[in-house]
Amino acid sequence: MNPLDLYRPSLGLLTDLYQLTMAAGYWALGLHDRQAVFHLYARKAPFGGSWAVAGGLEPALGMLEGWGFDTDDVDYLAELTGNDGEPLFASGFLRYLSDLRFSCDVDAVPEGSLVAPPAPLLRVRGPLLQAQILETPLLTVLNFQTLIATKAARVVLAAGDDHVLEFGLRRAQGIDGGLSASRAAYLGGATATSNVLAGRLFGIPVKGTHAHSWIMVFEDEPEAFASYASAMPNNCVFLVDTYSTVEGVHRAVAAGKALRAQGHEMVGIRLDSGDLCALSKEARRILDAGGFPDAAVVASNDLDEHRIVALKAAGAPIGVWGVGTRLVTAHDQPSLGGVYKLGAIQDEAGTWQPRVKLSENIAKVSIPGCLQVRRRVDPRHGTVPGGHHLG
Amino acid sequence: MNPLDLYRPSLGLLTDLYQLTMAAGYWALGLHDRQAVFHLYARKAPFGGSWAVAGGLEPALGMLEGWGFDTDDVDYLAELTGNDGEPLFASGFLRYLSDLRFSCDVDAVPEGSLVAPPAPLLRVRGPLLQAQILETPLLTVLNFQTLIATKAARVVLAAGDDHVLEFGLRRAQGIDGGLSASRAAYLGGATATSNVLAGRLFGIPVKGTHAHSWIMVFEDEPEAFASYASAMPNNCVFLVDTYSTVEGVHRAVAAGKALRAQGHEMVGIRLDSGDLCALSKEARRILDAGGFPDAAVVASNDLDEHRIVALKAAGAPIGVWGVGTRLVTAHDQPSLGGVYKLGAIQDEAGTWQPRVKLSENIAKVSIPGCLQVRRRVDPRHGTVPGGHHLG
Repeated sequence: MNPLDLYRPSLGLLTDLYQLTMAAGYWALGLHDRQAVFHLYARKAPFGGSWAVAGGLEPALGMLEGWGFDTDDVDYLAELTGNDGEPLFASGFLRYLSDLRFSCDVDAVPEGSLVAPPAPLLRVRGPLLQAQILETPLLTVLNFQTLIATKAARVVLAAGDDHVLEFGLRRAQGIDGGLSASRAAYLGGATATSNVLAGRLFGIPVKGTHAHSWIMVFEDEPEAFASYASAMPNNCVFLVDTYSTVEGVHRAVAAGKALRAQGHEMVGIRLDSGDLCALSKEARRILDAGGFPDAAVVASNDLDEHRIVALKAAGAPIGVWGVGTRLVTAHDQPSLGGVYKLGAIQDEAGTWQPRVKLSENIAKVSIPGCLQVRRRVDPRHGTVPGGHHLG
Repeated sequence: MNPLDLYRPSLGLLTDLYQLTMAAGYWALGLHDRQAVFHLYARKAPFGGSWAVAGGLEPALGMLEGWGFDTDDVDYLAELTGNDGEPLFASGFLRYLSDLRFSCDVDAVPEGSLVAPPAPLLRVRGPLLQAQILETPLLTVLNFQTLIATKAARVVLAAGDDHVLEFGLRRAQGIDGGLSASRAAYLGGATATSNVLAGRLFGIPVKGTHAHSWIMVFEDEPEAFASYASAMPNNCVFLVDTYSTVEGVHRAVAAGKALRAQGHEMVGIRLDSGDLCALSKEARRILDAGGFPDAAVVASNDLDEHRIVALKAAGAPIGVWGVGTRLVTAHDQPSLGGVYKLGAIQDEAGTWQPRVKLSENIAKVSIPGCLQVRRRVDPRHGTVPGGHHLG
């Protein structure tokens, strides 16, 4: 299958089967249009912190705009059977799905806002059947982008005034795993991405120069640097660790001098392996001594906020941080664990009835009601995120 | 942006920018059609094991079939600038990209095969420029699906003869992060998925009944079970832990008896929280005593191969395992770390020249040459995966 075709027809089936079997149940019992309120929230802030950066709202709203079930979707559902071999879904229900159009109200925290879990990120209010089916796709989009936006914000905070480049596409979770991660990383404060399609689709600045394979194509490193400088003179960050890093920096200086003689300036060098602290200090010294005090030392290789803090504390003169795998997969906590819970439902008389999910685990007990997020300002501390109240 | 539109035009830009700047360099130097060989491989098997299950080949080939750059792609690239504010890409190069069609040879291990890293999963042989750009998208697709297929195989091995259901869509890494994960989990041996779109697109069996929200819609649990049974009589797995698990199992037995009186049979009950070992034993006892010895005890809640092994060792009578977050995110190792390295390139005379990437880290040293994977059979031990040789 061509991934280009994946999303063509509709996204109605992008949900868990139990949402559709429950929907069929609501329809059979005449409850499908009963007004209900669901809240999407993370039970706990990720990465051991106390906050999250809301992400994924715009793609989620885009998904809702075109939401529905096309003929192929309904034909597929008609073929499913239960444990007696008979059809799982009644034909009347399938006709209802064919005609269904999105008609819920959605309220949400704007993307890029700080939220304090378990405050809701998003509230859906509308017909029970629709709001139920949408649980899964809303969680799929918001869970992941909120997780990555939060991770990116942590990395960017660690990097201080330095730039953070998101380099993770090759280790991302599939095609739009990569696209969503690039988008969310930018939302969280990354300066640019290596992912060109994300650059085009989302207007994110793109960055990149050359990889080890460029060096390996040529007979030796000096020829490789000189060739790159001649072909791409206005985009020269030389990757120096293909053979010997320190020697590579000296060769980059030589290539930079030749480039300067032609009226162009080397942007910097990149370290991708080894002891980044010691090598960045040595590289900085060689660049300065060679007449390139403005050339950046870029570092990559399994970086995250913890390694950046440690490298900065050790005085590593790294000015640009390329962060890949550990950012786009949220390596130390690869799922947010967001949930979507019924808060209230109207009874036959149209009166709202609050609903709660109980659990022996207190963190799993839901907050009943139709919730509203408010943010209070404490004059002593500035804006304080969070706080949820019955509306 | 509507996710439906994401993949419409082309996937040429789904790559890192440095692949395109290197491509521009190869083109400027007349090296773009030089024949080259790249290998895609994992340096190490994931999850502390010695093997991986190859995944992602068919979607990757689908992507290659339609691969190219459309007018919007090229217009976007024409706007990018270097550090002097001048265009990054020469117009001649952009014209070349517009006309480019995929013409490499791809050899690969069939999907579902066991591979022993660092044996290659896939080999690309063809014009240097194309093979270079394809590094990123091939890694994006194969890395993730191989990771999840391997994780699924570990979970399925832990579950022995029991069924494993993949329930992870809501915690997956974006839309096709979820679709790819469902596909790869099935490849690795999962019985079914909750992801209905994956069911339709890839022909995977789908499973699901109801969630806590169904229970919470009704006044009490007995009414909720009875309502579900009346609406969906041939698909009854009752989720019993919304309020009190043990009471929930007794109520499921009551609902199952009413169902049986109408000629239908309860499939089972599902536990989603608490001490799964103790609760599954109690649930099994209640079901057997109630006349439902064939009703399955389904368990879910942060399961993975380690928890399944521990629960089985403790004698938990769980027959069906719903595995979500920890499977679709490969929670304990959320990236495979696959790489794509130049193995050989033809010189001007057309003679193959091997290439190697050196590193102080021995695991990062690449294997030079044009590699071939062979599998030897040891008559004492059966098939032994792995072994790579210069071809």
